[in-house]
Amino acid sequence: MPSKEASQFGINNIPYGIASSAKHSSPQCVTRIGDNVIFLASLSASSTFKDISADLPTIFQNSTLNAFASLPKQVHSQVRAAIQAAYKDGSDISHSEDIKDVTLHVPVQIGDFTDFSASRDHVLNAGEAILGERSYPPSFHKYPIGYAGRCSSIVPSGTAIQRPLGQFIENYAAAEKNIIFGPCRALDYELEVGAVVGRPLAGGKGLHAKDAEEHIFGLILVNDWSARDIQGLEMNPLGPFNGKNFATTVSSWVVTSEALEAHKVAAPERMSPVAGFLDAENAVNYRIDLAAEITRNGAVSNTCKVGFDTMYWTFAHMLAHHTVGGCGLRTGDLIASGTVSGQGDEEHGCLLEMTKNGKVPWKLSDGDELRYLEDGDEVRFTGIVGDEKDGIGFGECIGTVLPARQA
Amino acid sequence: MPSKEASQFGINNIPYGIASSAKHSSPQCVTRIGDNVIFLASLSASSTFKDISADLPTIFQNSTLNAFASLPKQVHSQVRAAIQAAYKDGSDISHSEDIKDVTLHVPVQIGDFTDFSASRDHVLNAGEAILGERSYPPSFHKYPIGYAGRCSSIVPSGTAIQRPLGQFIENYAAAEKNIIFGPCRALDYELEVGAVVGRPLAGGKGLHAKDAEEHIFGLILVNDWSARDIQGLEMNPLGPFNGKNFATTVSSWVVTSEALEAHKVAAPERMSPVAGFLDAENAVNYRIDLAAEITRNGAVSNTCKVGFDTMYWTFAHMLAHHTVGGCGLRTGDLIASGTVSGQGDEEHGCLLEMTKNGKVPWKLSDGDELRYLEDGDEVRFTGIVGDEKDGIGFGECIGTVLPARQA
Repeated sequence: MPSKEASQFGINNIPYGIASSAKHSSPQCVTRIGDNVIFLASLSASSTFKDISADLPTIFQNSTLNAFASLPKQVHSQVRAAIQAAYKDGSDISHSEDIKDVTLHVPVQIGDFTDFSASRDHVLNAGEAILGERSYPPSFHKYPIGYAGRCSSIVPSGTAIQRPLGQFIENYAAAEKNIIFGPCRALDYELEVGAVVGRPLAGGKGLHAKDAEEHIFGLILVNDWSARDIQGLEMNPLGPFNGKNFATTVSSWVVTSEALEAHKVAAPERMSPVAGFLDAENAVNYRIDLAAEITRNGAVSNTCKVGFDTMYWTFAHMLAHHTVGGCGLRTGDLIASGTVSGQGDEEHGCLLEMTKNGKVPWKLSDGDELRYLEDGDEVRFTGIVGDEKDGIGFGECIGTVLPARQA
Repeated sequence: MPSKEASQFGINNIPYGIASSAKHSSPQCVTRIGDNVIFLASLSASSTFKDISADLPTIFQNSTLNAFASLPKQVHSQVRAAIQAAYKDGSDISHSEDIKDVTLHVPVQIGDFTDFSASRDHVLNAGEAILGERSYPPSFHKYPIGYAGRCSSIVPSGTAIQRPLGQFIENYAAAEKNIIFGPCRALDYELEVGAVVGRPLAGGKGLHAKDAEEHIFGLILVNDWSARDIQGLEMNPLGPFNGKNFATTVSSWVVTSEALEAHKVAAPERMSPVAGFLDAENAVNYRIDLAAEITRNGAVSNTCKVGFDTMYWTFAHMLAHHTVGGCGLRTGDLIASGTVSGQGDEEHGCLLEMTKNGKVPWKLSDGDELRYLEDGDEVRFTGIVGDEKDGIGFGECIGTVLPARQA
């Protein structure tokens, strides 16, 4: 019986990942068609890639996608076409193992992880939940606001997430703002999409937004787990730190720029003029239907359905802003979008927005109250590109909350 | 003639770095005594390390110190003693080249870079310069506040620093807060010390401050170049990003924990009680005399002299806070202290403090006015451990400002 994600991995997808198995003990480069995980170093030993001028047999043995991601787009295109030609009739499953027999790993070595806050509605909703005010930060209309995240805490989909310990204000409503230490009481997820850098950029160069897409290898799903109470105390003045750095989950499959090409949509109109290097008529979003669900006590509740086309700042804008001051990019860098939220009540990409920072409970499917995540809750993200019939998706980005360690 | 730093590299120092040269074309592990840079893989071929149970000939051929830094402290101690024994009379310069014949590189591969704000006086002075108010952020007395920095922009001492481009408020004093794009007008340095992680810590464990020193391989000097105008606009709400990520300079030599051991001093008394995991009676600073100087038009001006013993939060506190939520540490991680500033007027570790954010000019030695850095300015940091006669120092951490690129 096919897995519930099998239909997302049609011949138009051809995403890349890193897998190991009993038969393939070293983690190495793979793609997936249906539930068949194809080991690309093995496939390279056939004649499939014979006309492509890159050392693919070596590159595909690597335990990360970085070397492959750094190749020219033209090579990516040739490899994709060759895989599609080899498997187009769906009957050839040579060089492959079933998805249930492999272990999937973080697909790239991430030298730097940046998280942006590119959604207009997330900014307004989060401001309302925390400060009681729907307002934009002073620079929101001028550039996408971002911060550097923690690379060592990035884990593959499926990794259990330990509730963090930390210091936070016990009760904001009380007259006395006591700071206490203990397990986080406001554990949240953030539904995000991440871009993986392919072609690097040397420091000191800067990118114009119109040229930035060339540096994106593909996209993945990201859960930027957030401890809202810990984060709330530490944000002033240096931004998120322990509220975020305990864990970030990434999905296993990088959906390539080429697979996304047919699903581009124009970015929303600018609300006010931007600097020249951000002024790109070709700035695009992608049609990706994102969804979040929570499983508590065996009952599944859909908590969010939102389109990635709602994002105000696009990845092209993010990369241009990121590099304008001289910062370089390395292959494998992860650039995440920040929480994806739309205008509707069902389009809140995090619980901070959905429950107004835990103040307004949301009904789970079994009638239980959801304010923030409880131990044992499983959070699952999915993303379907275009229409379901296109057969392109990210699989899942999943994690279950474990109790905090004993302090 | 010996270099001006030669006396900092006495037999009590034995720092580690990465060097290459005409004779040693691959960057590899070195130490330094006086002006002699000793190539440790070559030294390993002699009998110097014969009683030490680690594969030193292989480890010292690496192009980073990471593998060496991850070894047990006992091995570091044995290697140090063996080098000291081999070179104690100062006449043996085998396996070495003169400092002027080698190129020094960033000594470790840095998987994550964290910058803290651990100085009481820096926080008060910076607050005064920007907000006109000497006050602490809400969590300052509870834990060291930090943020994640950019790894790809970390450069070795001597690298020229291009003035960043960016967006910032043209004139804070004006009624209209216009945001403009152009070369940074408020380029600053930050005089910092960084700890290099040796022994790693798995995620989810957490460190008590009393045990944290065990994870420090040694210290280096850090110049956290800062674009105050770009930073000023972006800080709300996610903290520093483009104001910092264009460049961070590190000194070439890691001075080991063992060399620093005799120069420990008690940390300042806590101003208020802290959580149990931060409550360490053995929390220490080090006696390090730090200095900053600017060379403009050939004239050298000493802009800062400050002791590292002024720091309110110690590295032990920083590591404990960093890991309490579950964040792990990897060998080579760089944990920087933030600007080191004391109470005196000559103890300001950055120009933001010294010139009140450019509003009060400071007289350079040639009579020129210093507000922020100009193109062509050279910034040089030094750090002497203990007394000069102890012969322990970091060498220099240096960089010259280049004009911004054409936008």
